[in-house]
Amino acid sequence: MQRKVLALLRAAGDGYISGEEIAGCLGVSRTAVWKHIRALKAAGYEIESHARKGYSLVDTPDLLLPQEIQPMLRTKVVGQTMVHFDEIPSSNNEAKRLAMEGTPDGTVVVAEAQGAGKGRLSRGWYSPSRKGIWFSVVFRPSFLPQDAPKCTLMAAVAVVRAMKDMGFSVGIKWPNDVLDKDGKKLVGTLTEMNAEMERVNFVVIGTGINVNLWPEDFPEDVRDIATSLSMLRGGNVNRVELFERVLEAMDELYLTVERDGFGAVLDEWRKYSVTLRQEVNVIGVKETFAGTAVDIDEDGALLIDTGEGRRRVLAGDVSIRPRK
Amino acid sequence: MQRKVLALLRAAGDGYISGEEIAGCLGVSRTAVWKHIRALKAAGYEIESHARKGYSLVDTPDLLLPQEIQPMLRTKVVGQTMVHFDEIPSSNNEAKRLAMEGTPDGTVVVAEAQGAGKGRLSRGWYSPSRKGIWFSVVFRPSFLPQDAPKCTLMAAVAVVRAMKDMGFSVGIKWPNDVLDKDGKKLVGTLTEMNAEMERVNFVVIGTGINVNLWPEDFPEDVRDIATSLSMLRGGNVNRVELFERVLEAMDELYLTVERDGFGAVLDEWRKYSVTLRQEVNVIGVKETFAGTAVDIDEDGALLIDTGEGRRRVLAGDVSIRPRK
Repeated sequence: MQRKVLALLRAAGDGYISGEEIAGCLGVSRTAVWKHIRALKAAGYEIESHARKGYSLVDTPDLLLPQEIQPMLRTKVVGQTMVHFDEIPSSNNEAKRLAMEGTPDGTVVVAEAQGAGKGRLSRGWYSPSRKGIWFSVVFRPSFLPQDAPKCTLMAAVAVVRAMKDMGFSVGIKWPNDVLDKDGKKLVGTLTEMNAEMERVNFVVIGTGINVNLWPEDFPEDVRDIATSLSMLRGGNVNRVELFERVLEAMDELYLTVERDGFGAVLDEWRKYSVTLRQEVNVIGVKETFAGTAVDIDEDGALLIDTGEGRRRVLAGDVSIRPRK
Repeated sequence: MQRKVLALLRAAGDGYISGEEIAGCLGVSRTAVWKHIRALKAAGYEIESHARKGYSLVDTPDLLLPQEIQPMLRTKVVGQTMVHFDEIPSSNNEAKRLAMEGTPDGTVVVAEAQGAGKGRLSRGWYSPSRKGIWFSVVFRPSFLPQDAPKCTLMAAVAVVRAMKDMGFSVGIKWPNDVLDKDGKKLVGTLTEMNAEMERVNFVVIGTGINVNLWPEDFPEDVRDIATSLSMLRGGNVNRVELFERVLEAMDELYLTVERDGFGAVLDEWRKYSVTLRQEVNVIGVKETFAGTAVDIDEDGALLIDTGEGRRRVLAGDVSIRPRK
């Protein structure tokens, strides 16, 4: 009901809608309308009341609330089920818990803050309140477990597509780091999978996007290597708009993958890549070597021309060597 | 302490050891010894008491108890931690639960009976009490998630190696069914994985071996397609001995894989295969086709010569066509 009141306020645009009209539309008393308005105000909606004209929606809260996101969301799967937390230890852990309980394909878990955000390889991810978009998506794909590692490329492509649409100049470092032009990190992704040998039970893709962090918001040890969209733009960025665009891109890519495989994702990844055609150092599991990054193959592996042949990199850290 | 008493009884072989000797060895009272003997008898150990000579171990219970298995087990990793249940809903579920809590590499969960044993693709697995070996192993491998599906081949190879060592004539149908000469099923495997994109958190390999089931022990709907070792031999088979051999084979294969990769496993799989060089029907995810099974590739995929080229099968059911 609160959501319907909000929809009517939105429909009035910059104008007003009277309590009587709302009550009539929804078939409730004017007292009930007034209670819903009060609840919306408590949730952070700025609503102007005018004795004669009624109510007008002035501003919406800077929160990633499902009632804000979902009415605008043009997706088939991603975000059709959405759970919001003010703070949570880790959105990936919550998403995995929901997945075990059978939550549907495309379920989104989003938190304003994470107490113990997780990054790749047991690294942490700093997730301060309302400064970023910290979220996880549960997928129940039909592809084989062997294909699942490419989900991490898909997530990076979705985020970059959304950021480019909003005018940011960003690129992807293999496999899934989203960087600005100076090579500073904007986004981290942690993908986890639960599978049998011939079937993926579920994949959880966790993504952390640094939106409105300023230098003093970062822990000291990452201040030199991380950045945010607000720092690139010189002003805060609308988190709701960016989140909607990311979810829409992810939805489109996921449906394409389910229909035709990962080919289109890999092509778009190549387009956004800052790693390809660069001299790189590879810190692999067992050894370190250098070469030119020439392409990714159909498994998403990075192909390195070492001068003595090609090598395939499926895991490890790849750093781009500064040009002399 | 009970385990130490048992070890002394074993050390006496067919002979006797007095309560006084046991008490002296272990530094406890004779009353304490007597209590341990009583507890062992209650657990199913047959112990003869003789007023003058002392105690003699006549027979051990037909149970897959860690105190029976572990002292004999020549493994480095597999079964060094072992948990036994009289009945459990599913050994895989219990193994996954322990894995989440951090149980070490090689942990074995074994149950005399499963209330809701799980097979591949949500099929069930009938696991009556003390008739089979129903167990799961937790592995924490260093290989990449892309390699994990080959664990299911590894499990089949371990079981076949152990059965052949005990004189049974068995083979593997791709990917991991262990069959007798008439194509009846003896063993089922369900492998589950929990992974990030570049790291396997853990793999749980669940295996059900039909040891001492007789025709009336099988549900009617599988009676024609399943069999057991006791039916092949015409008499009950020692479960403890078989279990030890399977765990030892699994340990050796796992250590080889961790050191050198899956090459040796795939070679041994080829040796045991009943699928290769046969005319087969493939019921895949999207379609059905026929051809000759020519080999498995380095991913464990079955290669089928259809007459119009080669096809790779990574998932699905493969049936061997009867020769005309």
